[in-house]
Amino acid sequence: MDHLGFKPLSRVAVCGGTHGNEMSGVYLLKELQVSQPERVRSFSLSTLLVNPRAVDACRRYTEKDMNRCFTDALLSAPTTATTPYEVTRAQEVNGQLGPKGSEKAVDLICDLHNTTANMGLCIITHVSDWLGLHLFKYLQEKITSAPVRLILLKSPFSEVYSLESVGKHGFTLEVGPQPQGVLRADIYNLMREGVNRALEWVESFNSGTVFEGGEVEAYIDVDTKDYPRDPKTQELTAAIHPQLQDNDFCLLKPGDPAFVSLSGETICYEGEALYPFFVNEGAYYEQNTAFKLAQRETLLLPAVSVKKPQ
Amino acid sequence: MDHLGFKPLSRVAVCGGTHGNEMSGVYLLKELQVSQPERVRSFSLSTLLVNPRAVDACRRYTEKDMNRCFTDALLSAPTTATTPYEVTRAQEVNGQLGPKGSEKAVDLICDLHNTTANMGLCIITHVSDWLGLHLFKYLQEKITSAPVRLILLKSPFSEVYSLESVGKHGFTLEVGPQPQGVLRADIYNLMREGVNRALEWVESFNSGTVFEGGEVEAYIDVDTKDYPRDPKTQELTAAIHPQLQDNDFCLLKPGDPAFVSLSGETICYEGEALYPFFVNEGAYYEQNTAFKLAQRETLLLPAVSVKKPQ
Repeated sequence: MDHLGFKPLSRVAVCGGTHGNEMSGVYLLKELQVSQPERVRSFSLSTLLVNPRAVDACRRYTEKDMNRCFTDALLSAPTTATTPYEVTRAQEVNGQLGPKGSEKAVDLICDLHNTTANMGLCIITHVSDWLGLHLFKYLQEKITSAPVRLILLKSPFSEVYSLESVGKHGFTLEVGPQPQGVLRADIYNLMREGVNRALEWVESFNSGTVFEGGEVEAYIDVDTKDYPRDPKTQELTAAIHPQLQDNDFCLLKPGDPAFVSLSGETICYEGEALYPFFVNEGAYYEQNTAFKLAQRETLLLPAVSVKKPQ
Repeated sequence: MDHLGFKPLSRVAVCGGTHGNEMSGVYLLKELQVSQPERVRSFSLSTLLVNPRAVDACRRYTEKDMNRCFTDALLSAPTTATTPYEVTRAQEVNGQLGPKGSEKAVDLICDLHNTTANMGLCIITHVSDWLGLHLFKYLQEKITSAPVRLILLKSPFSEVYSLESVGKHGFTLEVGPQPQGVLRADIYNLMREGVNRALEWVESFNSGTVFEGGEVEAYIDVDTKDYPRDPKTQELTAAIHPQLQDNDFCLLKPGDPAFVSLSGETICYEGEALYPFFVNEGAYYEQNTAFKLAQRETLLLPAVSVKKPQ
C-alpha cells in the first residue's frame, strides 16, 4: 500500500447551496462561473447550485435536509406527489453528477458548506478515499491563514447521506464561523482559497505529480451531546459555556465547563475526554446536538499518483 | 427644562421574540418568568412572547416583519382573511400592552432584539422620551463588559413602527453579534445584565431618586448603504470589507474600504464621513441595507424624578 495509482480526475464538480442559508458557497459558485471557464486545464469543471428553492428562501431546506438525501435508498425511491422537494431534487442531482456508485459519476465532488461554529476550514471525507485524504494533506500544507482540519466518516459510501458521496471521490469543504444568511468576506475568502488550492491539487495530480505518503491527523465523529433541556417541554435550559464556545477541536475533559444555565450556573462535561466540534451550530438545535465529539487518530497515507495507461 | 417630574412607572413589560430567530430575548423571557415573580417591587412586571408563530418556526417573521406593524395606521386597520398574521398579532399585542398613545398603555416597554452585527449593547429610543434616555445613561454608566450606545429615532411616536412605541415610554435593547437561530452565552448574559440594570433603574426612579441631567452621546440614523449588486439580477457582487466588518460605530470616511468584490477587489466608501452600524445584519439583506449610517450628536438631558402627588 505504499504507492497507489488512480485514473486522472477528468470531471470535477464544485457544488454550493446544498443548504440554502450557507452563503459562502452560494456566492463562490457565482465567482467560479465568471472566473474559471476561461482557464485551460486537464479537467472539466462544472458548478452546481444544489438546492435553488432553499437558496431563494434563504433557508437550510424547504421540506427535508438535502444533505441527508443521498443514500442509495432515497436516491432510488419512487417519487409521488408527497415526496419532499429535496428528495426529488437529490435524484435530479444524482442524474447530473452520478449515478452514485457508477462509472458515469463525476470523478470528484467538492461540496461547499458553512457552519456557525468556529471550525476554520474542515475537509470532511471518507476513510477509504485516498485522493480526498491527499487533497486534505495538500490544503493543510498550503493554507496558513486559518486552521485546516480533517473530519473522517467511517461508514461505507452507499450509506453516506451527503452529496459528496455521489462522486467517485468527494469531500465537503466546511468553513466557519459565519451566521446563517450572512456573507462574511473572511469566511468567503477562506473558502475560495480552499477551492482554488483543491483545483490546483487536481491539476498537479493529473499532470503526473507523485504525492508522497505520510501521516495526517483525523477527527473521527464518535458521539454527540445535546443541550440541557426541560424534561417536560424539551426547551433549552442552558447555552454553551463561554469557555467552550468558539473552542472547537480543543480537548474537552470530564469536569470542564460545557454549558451555562439561563440563570448563570455552570454545568460541567461528564464523559470521556474527546474533541468537540460543530459547537453551537445553528442548524443542529433541531437535531438535538449542542456539539459533536471526536476521537483524534493518526492515519498513514500511501503515496498516490496517476496510473499510467497500460 | 432643568428638572422634569414624571408619574411612577407602575407597569413594565419586557418583550421578546418580536423576531422569532433572535434567541437571547426568547430565552431571557423564560428566565425572567422563573426568577422575577418572587421579587417585591414598586412596579408590576409582565413578560410577553410577541411572535410565537415565528419563534416556533425559528424565523424572523412568517408573513410580515412584526416590528414594522406598530404604526397607528396598521394597528387600527380592519382585518380580513388575507391580513398577514403579524398585523393581526400586533393588534392583539396592542390590546394587551396599549392601546398605543392611550392612558391605558403600560408605562414602559423593553423589547429585546439581537443583531448579527458587532454592536455590543444598544438602546434604541426616541428623542422625546427623557426616561428612555435616562435609562440609557444609567446602563452606560453601570455596564462595563461591553460598549453601550444610544441610537435615537426622531420620528413622532404615532409614526414609529416598532413595538416599544406602544408603551408610554419604551426602548429596544439590541445586542450583538449573535447569529440568527443561535443562543450565545456571552450575548445572552449581556442582554440579561441590560434588563436587570433597567429594572434596577425603574425601581430607583419609582422610589424617588433624582437622576441628575447631563450629556449623552447619540447616534442618529441618517442614511443606509446597500451592497453592490448586479444591475440585471440584483444579486450581490461584493461583501462587506474585512476592515469594516465588526467595526460598527467607527467613523467611516470617504475612501475607506467598504466592500470587497467576490473576486477580491476593494470598493471604497463614497460619501460623507459618518458612523456605520448594523454592519452586515443578516435580516437587512432583503431590505437592501448593507449598513446604516449615523451622525453623532450630544444631547443635554434634564434631571428627572418622580413627580410628587399634588
